[in-house]
Amino acid sequence: MQQAQKEIIVTTDGQGLYEISEEVRRFAKDAGIRTGQLTAYCRHTSASLVIQENADPDVRRDLIAFFQRLVPDGDPLFVHTLEGDDDMPAHVKSALTQTSITIPIMEEKLALGTWQGLYLFEHRNQPHARKIVLHVIGA
Amino acid sequence: MQQAQKEIIVTTDGQGLYEISEEVRRFAKDAGIRTGQLTAYCRHTSASLVIQENADPDVRRDLIAFFQRLVPDGDPLFVHTLEGDDDMPAHVKSALTQTSITIPIMEEKLALGTWQGLYLFEHRNQPHARKIVLHVIGA
Amino acid sequence: MQQAQKEIIVTTDGQGLYEISEEVRRFAKDAGIRTGQLTAYCRHTSASLVIQENADPDVRRDLIAFFQRLVPDGDPLFVHTLEGDDDMPAHVKSALTQTSITIPIMEEKLALGTWQGLYLFEHRNQPHARKIVLHVIGA
Repeated sequence: MQQAQKEIIVTTDGQGLYEISEEVRRFAKDAGIRTGQLTAYCRHTSASLVIQENADPDVRRDLIAFFQRLVPDGDPLFVHTLEGDDDMPAHVKSALTQTSITIPIMEEKLALGTWQGLYLFEHRNQPHARKIVLHVIGA
Repeated sequence: MQQAQKEIIVTTDGQGLYEISEEVRRFAKDAGIRTGQLTAYCRHTSASLVIQENADPDVRRDLIAFFQRLVPDGDPLFVHTLEGDDDMPAHVKSALTQTSITIPIMEEKLALGTWQGLYLFEHRNQPHARKIVLHVIGA
Repeated sequence: MQQAQKEIIVTTDGQGLYEISEEVRRFAKDAGIRTGQLTAYCRHTSASLVIQENADPDVRRDLIAFFQRLVPDGDPLFVHTLEGDDDMPAHVKSALTQTSITIPIMEEKLALGTWQGLYLFEHRNQPHARKIVLHVIGA
């Protein structure tokens, strides 16, 4: 049984979905795990992780539009507004999606489905450098 | 320390919650893990996983009704509509619930609470065969 | 490779976010894991887990307010009302947040980001004793 760990940085430029599947796949492959699991963990509360379809880009556009309608920037419900109109909505969108996702590794491959991609979901408008910790364990 | 892995298929017949607790429990038991953890992973972006009450069936009915009201089929917000009125809502509902869930194994038993069941949450109307990967690690 | 497991009880007194970061950190530290991962698992369907900002308390206030507006107590949509106006909303809020969260352990420390806290999210009005199972694996 062995492990490997790595922190990756994803630079973002506004709200949106940033695919990290390839980087994560490469890390899992380099770790030489045949059977096991990989956990991706987002070290922020205004960005999160999500598994989504990686075929039609309209899916990402629609997903972002839905979350913006559900938790609008500048919503008068919010008291925590000092860091900007998009800050508290970012915290809520993070709570509604994932901070950690665990994916099995089968026969040396991540068990992502045919249409699945792993994305960093950036909820802030300004550019950020987001830290994601990857951890694999297995044999 | 040992591991086991299995892909199970859940056949669905429309939107709803399909309980997989028993199959998952059996897999964990057969793996002979006394202390460890089990991860269930859904290989789709229009179906997901959720832990819910497995006592009163009205809870499942209400949960489905809530998600249908929150993300209605045919919502004019969506551009990605070629695969049907229920396709983009299915992606959103998947993002709002879980793709992976990790449950500890204690004293040879899954740590599901008294009222907890593990469910595949199908978001599409047409029948599907959904792939769930189970992975246990422990001793 | 080694493991440790523990069930902790969080007593709650109404809807809100109850931080458990310190207790979880202490457990991970006592387990003596240098590199690995920790899973927190909530054994309930009317309380859940969430990672949120632990700096400005207004963030927690706003998060609770958002979920109460999205899934109001006494929503006439719900049929499952016997256990109180806040019961079915509690199940929905649990489905919208997390039952399990996995956090890597790096250099003997939980990989929680600078502003991240791990919280039990209580969705019921009455006092409860909530069971959270912690599991670490690593070396």
